[in-house]
Amino acid sequence: MKIDPRPDLSLYLVTDRGSSRGRAAADIVREAVAGGVTCVQLRDKHSPTRELIAEARRLMALLRPAGIPLIINDRLDVALAVQADGVHLGQQDMDIADARLLAGPAMIIGISVESLADAVRAEHQGADYLGISPVFATPTKTDTAAPLGLEGVARIRRAVALPLVGIGGIKADNAAAVIAAGADGVAVVSAIVAADCPRTAAAELKGRIAQAREGRMI
Amino acid sequence: MKIDPRPDLSLYLVTDRGSSRGRAAADIVREAVAGGVTCVQLRDKHSPTRELIAEARRLMALLRPAGIPLIINDRLDVALAVQADGVHLGQQDMDIADARLLAGPAMIIGISVESLADAVRAEHQGADYLGISPVFATPTKTDTAAPLGLEGVARIRRAVALPLVGIGGIKADNAAAVIAAGADGVAVVSAIVAADCPRTAAAELKGRIAQAREGRMI
Repeated sequence: MKIDPRPDLSLYLVTDRGSSRGRAAADIVREAVAGGVTCVQLRDKHSPTRELIAEARRLMALLRPAGIPLIINDRLDVALAVQADGVHLGQQDMDIADARLLAGPAMIIGISVESLADAVRAEHQGADYLGISPVFATPTKTDTAAPLGLEGVARIRRAVALPLVGIGGIKADNAAAVIAAGADGVAVVSAIVAADCPRTAAAELKGRIAQAREGRMI
Repeated sequence: MKIDPRPDLSLYLVTDRGSSRGRAAADIVREAVAGGVTCVQLRDKHSPTRELIAEARRLMALLRPAGIPLIINDRLDVALAVQADGVHLGQQDMDIADARLLAGPAMIIGISVESLADAVRAEHQGADYLGISPVFATPTKTDTAAPLGLEGVARIRRAVALPLVGIGGIKADNAAAVIAAGADGVAVVSAIVAADCPRTAAAELKGRIAQAREGRMI
């Protein structure tokens, strides 16, 4: 199935080996997709390149037939090698101009931003979507800025037109508020990868997001 | 100056931040080039991508005008972003077939091998040169196989036609023996980057290599 050029980012799973309780990424992703995840990011800052590529290929084999995009964190070499749908770049990763030149116009380029100024700049530089973080305090990443809060999400929403994905401390009980504040989607790590049942966790998040989106449309 | 398609690998410097005694890579490389280094590999397994790219661009600005190739360790994304001359891949990095597809025919692809079997396979797969390691025991890398020794260098020399660069524990007093055993060049890390004067250290190595090459031609 061809990936939509404007992918559904509403429930965006970010993998994390350290939170996975020893379970393989492919197994978690398979369950999470069955539960309704709409987009997957492979994030692994530690594995050797060859292992990363093998992991990315396993995920591509699961996701491509389901029409769900795979985005690779940081490593454009890996994204290009496996023909992933996109790359997600932090402020310490390759800059957008370099990445666009190598990735071509079709690859999705997502950018992590932690402030309104970052967001405006990334939109201007040609990002395809923004990961805005941290929305809430989070234990997964320890090197982050102060939480944006819902007001921060709303402020960025008013300033940029790009799709926005909130990340950081988002769970079933606060996901709807993030969407209501203006995000197009929520990204989660531990709320799915550390869950007893990733499928159930994804389905619950999906339901909350769908309700919030309907609420916003009224 | 255009980089020769068959670069001079005779004195091949591999950078290493940890052994550099706090000195900037660009400062060490500038001195090492003045001393006679013929090829430079940027090796940095820890810095964020953006910092790696900035460092690679600083080295390119030094090396390109001197006609000396810059090879990037592992990270083909970085090599492509800065239009480096090549990429050097270990057995845990991207495999040659993937790398060649992304890098194109002109980029130099060097492969690290630790055995005769690795060497024959890498030649078959289309490597442009081989880094054979460790020739001697080395403190710089702790995850290496048993030393090949001079006999191991000679054995690989008889089996493959590719340019061979010995690495691992090579210093001024044993460099000539590595060339005499059949290597086209020697790669060094701490013998230059940790030296009091990288320029003098490079010049001394260069002299020993030149003598050994003359000796081999008699």
